Amino acid sequence: MSNFILDNALVLTMDDQFTMVAGGAVAVRAGQIAAVGPSAQVVEQFPLWTRYDLQGRVLMPGLINCHTHLPMSLFRGLADDKELMDWLNNYIFPAEAATLNEDFVRTGTALSVWEMLRGGTTTVVDMYMFEKVVAKECARIGMRGVFGQAMIDFPTPEYKTWEESLEGTREFIQSWKGHPLIIGAVGPHAPYTVSPEHLQECHRLAEELDAPLVIHLCETRAEVDLIRDRHGRTPVDHLDHLGCLSKRLVTAHMVWPQDSEISKLAAHGVGVGHCPQSNAKLACGIAPVVKMLQAGVHVGLGTDGCASNNDLDMWQEMQTANLLQKLSCNSSTVMTARDTLHLATLGGARAAHLDHLVGSLEVGKRADMIVVRLDSPHQTPVFDPISQLCYTTKSTDVTQVYIEGQLVMSDGNVPAIEEAELRLAVAAEAERVQAILRR
Amino acid sequence: MSNFILDNALVLTMDDQFTMVAGGAVAVRAGQIAAVGPSAQVVEQFPLWTRYDLQGRVLMPGLINCHTHLPMSLFRGLADDKELMDWLNNYIFPAEAATLNEDFVRTGTALSVWEMLRGGTTTVVDMYMFEKVVAKECARIGMRGVFGQAMIDFPTPEYKTWEESLEGTREFIQSWKGHPLIIGAVGPHAPYTVSPEHLQECHRLAEELDAPLVIHLCETRAEVDLIRDRHGRTPVDHLDHLGCLSKRLVTAHMVWPQDSEISKLAAHGVGVGHCPQSNAKLACGIAPVVKMLQAGVHVGLGTDGCASNNDLDMWQEMQTANLLQKLSCNSSTVMTARDTLHLATLGGARAAHLDHLVGSLEVGKRADMIVVRLDSPHQTPVFDPISQLCYTTKSTDVTQVYIEGQLVMSDGNVPAIEEAELRLAVAAEAERVQAILRR
Repeated sequence: MSNFILDNALVLTMDDQFTMVAGGAVAVRAGQIAAVGPSAQVVEQFPLWTRYDLQGRVLMPGLINCHTHLPMSLFRGLADDKELMDWLNNYIFPAEAATLNEDFVRTGTALSVWEMLRGGTTTVVDMYMFEKVVAKECARIGMRGVFGQAMIDFPTPEYKTWEESLEGTREFIQSWKGHPLIIGAVGPHAPYTVSPEHLQECHRLAEELDAPLVIHLCETRAEVDLIRDRHGRTPVDHLDHLGCLSKRLVTAHMVWPQDSEISKLAAHGVGVGHCPQSNAKLACGIAPVVKMLQAGVHVGLGTDGCASNNDLDMWQEMQTANLLQKLSCNSSTVMTARDTLHLATLGGARAAHLDHLVGSLEVGKRADMIVVRLDSPHQTPVFDPISQLCYTTKSTDVTQVYIEGQLVMSDGNVPAIEEAELRLAVAAEAERVQAILRR
Repeated sequence: MSNFILDNALVLTMDDQFTMVAGGAVAVRAGQIAAVGPSAQVVEQFPLWTRYDLQGRVLMPGLINCHTHLPMSLFRGLADDKELMDWLNNYIFPAEAATLNEDFVRTGTALSVWEMLRGGTTTVVDMYMFEKVVAKECARIGMRGVFGQAMIDFPTPEYKTWEESLEGTREFIQSWKGHPLIIGAVGPHAPYTVSPEHLQECHRLAEELDAPLVIHLCETRAEVDLIRDRHGRTPVDHLDHLGCLSKRLVTAHMVWPQDSEISKLAAHGVGVGHCPQSNAKLACGIAPVVKMLQAGVHVGLGTDGCASNNDLDMWQEMQTANLLQKLSCNSSTVMTARDTLHLATLGGARAAHLDHLVGSLEVGKRADMIVVRLDSPHQTPVFDPISQLCYTTKSTDVTQVYIEGQLVMSDGNVPAIEEAELRLAVAAEAERVQAILRR
């Protein structure tokens, strides 16, 4: 199915004009969108192409998860309701130190991508160790993404020294250059785990390789205090001072920026992956999303890893983002359903610096598209499809997912995932994790 | 299937000891729980009863939705992202005034119960007009509940005068006395729409008929100010002064009680239906749930009506309740997964004053039970079933629902709902609503 038409859909382009076409169609040529519009027009343009009838379902861009750690699905529910530092130091870090290897990362990635594709996510901004394995597994299954190789100032199961990690990251990024789905990235963990000099090395490497730079930033008040104490500046200012703010930077969280820092994020074109559920579960706070959007910052949504969410459901993330902004701004009008869908699509593409490729259904962009039913009991009746997509749609309402024009999920099935085999591998890894924690 | 055993389950009783039995079973005799425990023990007790193998799935009490307006599913997504008063006065009230009748209420109720049963809700505390129709439809489908006949100081499509509504409510409540599923209740809308004298009449009627009293209370800061201005007291104190606080009262929302009012709620055994998603969507605020629980108030969870949620998904309500308490208390440990499940089960039963009947799987209680799978991709792997139930389980993971020992939902199918017929009726009502709004 190299060239084809998805026909008879409610096409929600998510372009800047928020164009919707009832009775619409999208034509796809070799993974790229060749036409979008009313069915008759599209069919007239490509009369010989195979047509698939979507029976009035929604056809929209795939969702963009701007921050996660794919392999951490293997730590899902391992430790909840802990203080952040207790959780990290006594559960997550020890579990990672004892269990992490390439098999673990491959299995966790497959589990996560399985869940994400079933829920309509087509692009991911990831950061983890053994990111080359994450990228390879995503390429195999057909998931698009920015893959940040985690770098940190202490030895990891992957790299013993900073120099090794720098060299490994360079090789990783170079090895994927030109791939249609995979973009390697430099992933310094955070300003409290990576020294100023090393942050600058990361930035220079990203510049040299023309690669994205992904980092956790401004997640907790404690981080803000720590960075101010150590370096005399708050986190965004700290990165600015180091020359690391740029349009290749994708930051995760950004819960506690000062107003002046928000202006800098906008001025430098820095992307923000807003993770409302993780920030709530770890009691970090509510990011000033409305304020950032008003300042012109590119904000997208992220789930964060499954250890702090505990799933990869972008529909729930949308609903949570919407509700939390209404609460924190004390206004029921401050974020609409349309604003919220934008965050998960074109907004996310801009935050990930991928809007030339994805985020909306427009001619010339890659054909990353999802089909969503609107007739489940919880979505009935439909007065406003946008409302239903934002407030009632579940990941289980996504019926088909296309990435780069390939059908990668249909009615819950992901062709590239061998379910029984994956379940066995997951069970084996989970057993290893439990054995560690029983010690 | 009058007497039967659900066998080979992970039985989560939700009793006060939080008893869990892996490889457990529950025996049901004529709608009542006859035994709960390890499979061998239960089977030994009733060796001749038919056994159904749950293949290790979770068997737990059905979820209790402590506040909703069932027919309002027909207003789902009609008007979002509005100011509360704009939303009420320019959308909801006009739509209700123009469309409400018995057919509308019956159809909306069926749609809501369809959704609720598919998601594992087995008891509902409702409040609406034409509540006799709501109750009748729930009885037909097999849903348990407390059904509050709405009463308000202005004419409604149902009753022209207060006296008529009082008489109608009396007849309604009396007519359902002794029914196994249906409990009629007195439902004064709120202290800002019902005069002090009328509130007292409602309370006396509830006392006379030994019926519950349900009311919206303390939902917004504006309400608190209004009641203080009008009556010299804040809402809970106002009801206390009128002698209306009692263990038959179920209040909805309770976002802004003062500490002294929380003590009164606890002292009088008043139930609270906490509606986190509705309170967020309308920017009302975050109820002090942890504080109320610590004071000994009986708190349950409610979705509110579909016009302000926009669905009836108690799993999402649990997750939202949990995350909002963590944010508002600035503590990731303040509400655990277990606490959250309690709110939706035994806590809700206590809030609705139904804990002698439902809320936990204990011998002598009614057999309201749900079967939940824990092997969906988003729930895999399982380190802690409680964590998965709170943080990753979706309504679509509920596979069977029993109420009063009757199988009312299985694999998404509700035997008492004729789907095609209901869809037609919903479409017709939605068309009427849209015609009103187009005027």
